[in-house]
Amino acid sequence: MRGYIVALAFLEPSTRTMYSFQSATYRLGGKTLVFSSKEATSLAKGENYADTIRMLDLYSDLIVIRSRHEGTAKYAAEIAENPVINAGDGRHEHPTQAMIDLYTMYRLFGAIDGLVIGVLGDLKYARTITSLLYGLTRFKPKKVYLISPGLLSLRKEVYDKITELGLPVEETTSLQEVLPELDVLYVTRIQKERYPDPLEYEKVKNLYRITPEVLGNAKKELRILHPLPKIDEIDPAVDETPYAAYFKQARWGVPLRMALLSLVLGVYEEV
Amino acid sequence: MRGYIVALAFLEPSTRTMYSFQSATYRLGGKTLVFSSKEATSLAKGENYADTIRMLDLYSDLIVIRSRHEGTAKYAAEIAENPVINAGDGRHEHPTQAMIDLYTMYRLFGAIDGLVIGVLGDLKYARTITSLLYGLTRFKPKKVYLISPGLLSLRKEVYDKITELGLPVEETTSLQEVLPELDVLYVTRIQKERYPDPLEYEKVKNLYRITPEVLGNAKKELRILHPLPKIDEIDPAVDETPYAAYFKQARWGVPLRMALLSLVLGVYEEV
Amino acid sequence: MRGYIVALAFLEPSTRTMYSFQSATYRLGGKTLVFSSKEATSLAKGENYADTIRMLDLYSDLIVIRSRHEGTAKYAAEIAENPVINAGDGRHEHPTQAMIDLYTMYRLFGAIDGLVIGVLGDLKYARTITSLLYGLTRFKPKKVYLISPGLLSLRKEVYDKITELGLPVEETTSLQEVLPELDVLYVTRIQKERYPDPLEYEKVKNLYRITPEVLGNAKKELRILHPLPKIDEIDPAVDETPYAAYFKQARWGVPLRMALLSLVLGVYEEV
Repeated sequence: MRGYIVALAFLEPSTRTMYSFQSATYRLGGKTLVFSSKEATSLAKGENYADTIRMLDLYSDLIVIRSRHEGTAKYAAEIAENPVINAGDGRHEHPTQAMIDLYTMYRLFGAIDGLVIGVLGDLKYARTITSLLYGLTRFKPKKVYLISPGLLSLRKEVYDKITELGLPVEETTSLQEVLPELDVLYVTRIQKERYPDPLEYEKVKNLYRITPEVLGNAKKELRILHPLPKIDEIDPAVDETPYAAYFKQARWGVPLRMALLSLVLGVYEEV
Repeated sequence: MRGYIVALAFLEPSTRTMYSFQSATYRLGGKTLVFSSKEATSLAKGENYADTIRMLDLYSDLIVIRSRHEGTAKYAAEIAENPVINAGDGRHEHPTQAMIDLYTMYRLFGAIDGLVIGVLGDLKYARTITSLLYGLTRFKPKKVYLISPGLLSLRKEVYDKITELGLPVEETTSLQEVLPELDVLYVTRIQKERYPDPLEYEKVKNLYRITPEVLGNAKKELRILHPLPKIDEIDPAVDETPYAAYFKQARWGVPLRMALLSLVLGVYEEV
Repeated sequence: MRGYIVALAFLEPSTRTMYSFQSATYRLGGKTLVFSSKEATSLAKGENYADTIRMLDLYSDLIVIRSRHEGTAKYAAEIAENPVINAGDGRHEHPTQAMIDLYTMYRLFGAIDGLVIGVLGDLKYARTITSLLYGLTRFKPKKVYLISPGLLSLRKEVYDKITELGLPVEETTSLQEVLPELDVLYVTRIQKERYPDPLEYEKVKNLYRITPEVLGNAKKELRILHPLPKIDEIDPAVDETPYAAYFKQARWGVPLRMALLSLVLGVYEEV
């Protein structure tokens, strides 16, 4: 990517995804323009969004965009002449994270087909979950358990789409019941602000918290994934167990995004 | 510019000019230190301005500076050993924007000599206008109309200087009267804060707003320029007409600043 | 350093040290990830510090870290796989500044052994002082005067350590008394917030302020060092005298940090 410029338009604050794209660009020899939420705020005073995208498009060769609003990346792609990568748009999707998740499963188990996968937590609003489930429809996992408190279960349109595409899903509120079957447990945070009643939140949080004790009746081969950052949904004591695969998963973020940038820009060589 | 470092000292927030200089530096193979208003604020707590410039001068090979205060760039150039480029100083000047404007006219019409040019809006405080008018004195346009409400007409010292240098200017408050003659219409924003009375502002704003209807009696060849960002002084419907040349103008920002950086640093080759 | 990435984790705001490391990295052909206090704040909302360091470690080849808290760099070095450089941790140490100070003395006088050195100001809390004194124990200066108001004299544990290592120190509250002997005067700021009584602060501040008059009975060869930024502890009129060596000292910041980065990464060649 020598000579290439990537515009990192992070209209919603981010650290992990942004630094990961920046590191990937650097590793390939490219440079970055960082357009953060602060600059976005100052532009928001008047200039329309389309003109801002046109500006970034002029000054770079590819835009990586994150935003609080659903559909932002798609709209940017309609305006820009250069490629646009969605780095998360509101509650909608986070496709590059899903690619990392799928790649991690592939690296850990040699295949995604045949796995029993549990996705746990805020299935309603976590965009990484939606993108992961869409991604999984391209493979043949044996079973996908959707584990969440009722309040945070998968949105109907996502559920309908993945079942229509033949993904073998099953909804449950009980982690303990399905845990012994799982090869992969994908954990996301349950956010306090989803619960009007703090006591209710505390109860739910504790029910889904991953500790060494909870993992007592898991398979030896179980691997836990998490998009990070994690707060307290996983006990730090789990970090030291062989179950924890989230630091490995994070490690594959940069090489995967390097591959993606190369493909999108066409700067790779066939081997 | 491989091995060169440009310090981007944007003491006044900016996006377009800053990213344009950053992109230009990258395209030439150089790197950037970004010193924004935030860092400036923290230094302002005590360190004197001269010491700050000395620091940036030590860490880079060229300083691009923008500031709210007139004369900042000139003072920086007196302190620094390396070259300094003025990227806008208060209400005073914005010379690199004027170079882009002149280059755009040259590219659109093949020459600046002989053109009939209207400059519209806040002629009193818009630094791009002042720099453009000074730049135009180096050429032989047929006529330059200064179009603005009386309150925002050109400052006397600027008017005196350009007429003394022989620029054929004429002041008017009526866009409609001169529009049919114009080859180029250069639009700037009329800022609300200039008007103590909001009703007065609304009236003036509407009088000078560019819409497809207003352009009804313009020449076919008329081209509209704007330094961007634009807010509502130009109806977005104009964007789609052949009159709109401001996106092309923006496109020439990076190559022009590449040329400028190369010349100032002496890193170009004679063809 | 082509292909290398340095993470600049400035959890405490900084300009001089940060830009100096960034410039050093660029001069060697490397690239930087800037992780400032703003990003740190957003992470602080929940993610633990260890996970943040792990993230930066994954995305870069070396972490330069500054923090308000003592021991941060050491803890980071325990977690990270890649090298960590301490760019200042609370009131504890600032070792790269001390290296610049020592190198400056060496360049100015040809040797550190035999010099009479005065360190002036806030000896209790200035981390540059502590690191400089530890550094001086590796050499044989003739005498080191510790000049400060009683309230801001050296902490006992530092005093004990350097005297145990044989550094010939002497404490004094009077600059005038020792000034005629000095080859080097190292000045740091006395911060207002150390004094509950503003009147007391004013008195102390004026007692230790360096002016051309104060320097009347100094040796011709005296050179004044300061880690910068300076506020009003040195009269700007001193800048123009041959005593002022602080701008030279600042100039050596980038090459010294270039040498340090090369050594730590092992990217240098033996001459």
